[in-house]
Amino acid sequence: MSAANPRIIDPVELTRELIARPSVTPADEGAMDALQRRLTALGFTCRRLAFEGPGGEGVHSRIENLYARRGTEGPNLCFAGHTDVVPTGRAEAWSSGPFDAEVKDGVLYGRGAVDMKGGIAAWVAAVSRILAEGEPKGSLSFLITGDEEGPALHGTKRVVETLMAEGEVIDACVVGEPSSQQALGDTIKIGRRGSLNSWITVHGKQGHVAYPHRAANPVPVLVRLLSRLDGHVLDDGYEAFQPSNLELTTIDVDNPASNVIPAEAKARLNIRFNPAQTGDGLIDWLNREAGAVQAETGLRITLEHLCSGEAFLTPEGDFTRAVQDAVEAVTGRRPEASTTGGTSDARFIRALCPVLELGLVGQTMHQIDERVPVSELQALTDVYVEVIRRVLV
Amino acid sequence: MSAANPRIIDPVELTRELIARPSVTPADEGAMDALQRRLTALGFTCRRLAFEGPGGEGVHSRIENLYARRGTEGPNLCFAGHTDVVPTGRAEAWSSGPFDAEVKDGVLYGRGAVDMKGGIAAWVAAVSRILAEGEPKGSLSFLITGDEEGPALHGTKRVVETLMAEGEVIDACVVGEPSSQQALGDTIKIGRRGSLNSWITVHGKQGHVAYPHRAANPVPVLVRLLSRLDGHVLDDGYEAFQPSNLELTTIDVDNPASNVIPAEAKARLNIRFNPAQTGDGLIDWLNREAGAVQAETGLRITLEHLCSGEAFLTPEGDFTRAVQDAVEAVTGRRPEASTTGGTSDARFIRALCPVLELGLVGQTMHQIDERVPVSELQALTDVYVEVIRRVLV
Ligand SMILES: [Zn+2]
Ligand SMILES: [Zn+2]
Repeated sequence: MSAANPRIIDPVELTRELIARPSVTPADEGAMDALQRRLTALGFTCRRLAFEGPGGEGVHSRIENLYARRGTEGPNLCFAGHTDVVPTGRAEAWSSGPFDAEVKDGVLYGRGAVDMKGGIAAWVAAVSRILAEGEPKGSLSFLITGDEEGPALHGTKRVVETLMAEGEVIDACVVGEPSSQQALGDTIKIGRRGSLNSWITVHGKQGHVAYPHRAANPVPVLVRLLSRLDGHVLDDGYEAFQPSNLELTTIDVDNPASNVIPAEAKARLNIRFNPAQTGDGLIDWLNREAGAVQAETGLRITLEHLCSGEAFLTPEGDFTRAVQDAVEAVTGRRPEASTTGGTSDARFIRALCPVLELGLVGQTMHQIDERVPVSELQALTDVYVEVIRRVLV
Repeated sequence: MSAANPRIIDPVELTRELIARPSVTPADEGAMDALQRRLTALGFTCRRLAFEGPGGEGVHSRIENLYARRGTEGPNLCFAGHTDVVPTGRAEAWSSGPFDAEVKDGVLYGRGAVDMKGGIAAWVAAVSRILAEGEPKGSLSFLITGDEEGPALHGTKRVVETLMAEGEVIDACVVGEPSSQQALGDTIKIGRRGSLNSWITVHGKQGHVAYPHRAANPVPVLVRLLSRLDGHVLDDGYEAFQPSNLELTTIDVDNPASNVIPAEAKARLNIRFNPAQTGDGLIDWLNREAGAVQAETGLRITLEHLCSGEAFLTPEGDFTRAVQDAVEAVTGRRPEASTTGGTSDARFIRALCPVLELGLVGQTMHQIDERVPVSELQALTDVYVEVIRRVLV
């Protein structure tokens, strides 16, 4: 009966329609419009928020974002996601064109299939089924950005700032990132680690290797500092979180002359940290360590830091239980609550409301031949229907 | 009386003539021809040895060298030097044009004034004075290269190989490098440290910083190895030599992405070593240390080494004493026998015969406004006359 209802949306068909728009960050190529048409047809009030400014490499960019809401009452259950995708890599290496959205042997191929046009389509399809059953309590909303895979400067972060400034109330949010590890619904993300990048420069004095006493080599000083930092245990973990981890991501001296002691040595590190740490606390620690090495060696050390997100953990409660119950009802598996992995836009949304991530199996994301079984898209739609029912109805 | 002798050569005039040829390595610009004309006029049999092949950056280069000899008997006292010079730097920053060879207030300015066109001119002038006094015993010879300041692949090294293969006998050699520190003749070089460059690569596995267990970060492994190497005391010195010294000259990972663990990390180091060490011994030590860190970390570490000269020490003996006596007779100062500083072509010549370095004060070498007082050029000529007298006559 519901298949005959013209307002019921097929998640496979909508995923294919979205994949066909090659919206590689920061391009949109009509992906946002395609989504907005569906939401408008479903009775959503759609509002475009375009933000612009320098992007990650200083290149000016303009990003489309969408906040859509259906209903004015609370509770307001939001779905958050992104229509942009990562580059395809070598298109010839794909089994079929990365934007052709072909279905072969029950599997849909294309860039964005799992990350995360498939997730968006499944939630839209789930909403269409809920609405076909009758008017739900509360409100449903979408927070969709075109800038998640890129520098993420003009996307969810700025939409959240705008909504908070306006006093918009969102009570709970599901982010449709591919949270599942091996099988649909085996994992939901209940928090994320924070991320801090630090740039270190040791300032020495250039000279000839044959006369080291007339120079001050910054390289061994940098090695000494990095050795101290790398040898330090930040913590042993925090509740559901892994221990915080520091990675030395690059060292660059760029001295082509084998007989010259260089004037400067630079390094960069990244710390992924759990809620036992804060960005400011880590910055203090790094500055103290550098100060100690500076005092020991007499060479000036300068640091710059950029914390792109604090660690957060969504507290256990009704929302988390409702989502876990919904997954278990459909799949028979109670999902593990995890905090592993990279950052996501959940780090911005958590300022608004409790936020969880629940989506497809992420194994092929960002890869050649990104793909999703049609049956998994349909199962995710079933899961999302259950989530909406348990939170709103 | 000797000034009236048309065969007496003025060292200032000849230095100016040589400076006027802008022979920045590998260019010659007629510098070698100008010298050869003077030597031919003084009765030397001149032989040009041109060698070619890839230069330091792989660029093909052709280098002129000159071996000139006057006399067939032993002993054969050789003077070695180079007509090439280092680049001028910003020519506008000079008090007068770097190839104008102007004399101002009794000081001659120009690229090569002290390193070492002045030294060559002083020895030629000294030879002209010796010959004006009568025929000396034995032979005088010149070993002049146009490739000392560059990669030095096609210069003295290959001339020495050729002369050794031919059985040419040289009994003693003075290299005219600017050995003096503060005042003419305060220092002669009786040996040089060896020099070893090593390139280290740690091979890891690329990955995302959020999933370090799926990657293998080569940067901390490199830091660990460099920390071990830098912390090691190679020796406490050797006779007249300073302790051997290791300098980390560069580290390059060149990873622009702050969320990526890089696949590879590279470093280069230089060791200046005394005769307590050998190039092979140091290479063994470096390979062992890398092997130990490889075993500890499981990451493959590869090394390449280039020993551009072993350490050497010219044994004390008649030659050294004769040279010291000559300096003391002219300047009133007995020169200190030193082994400090960079490498020189003496490292190749020592395979042929005892070799010492004696020349001008080097303070302005390789700098803007390289310069030599006219009086110092004349005094060096006097010193060289004494050296030739004491060794040959
Ligand atoms: Zn995503
Ligand atoms: Zn020189």
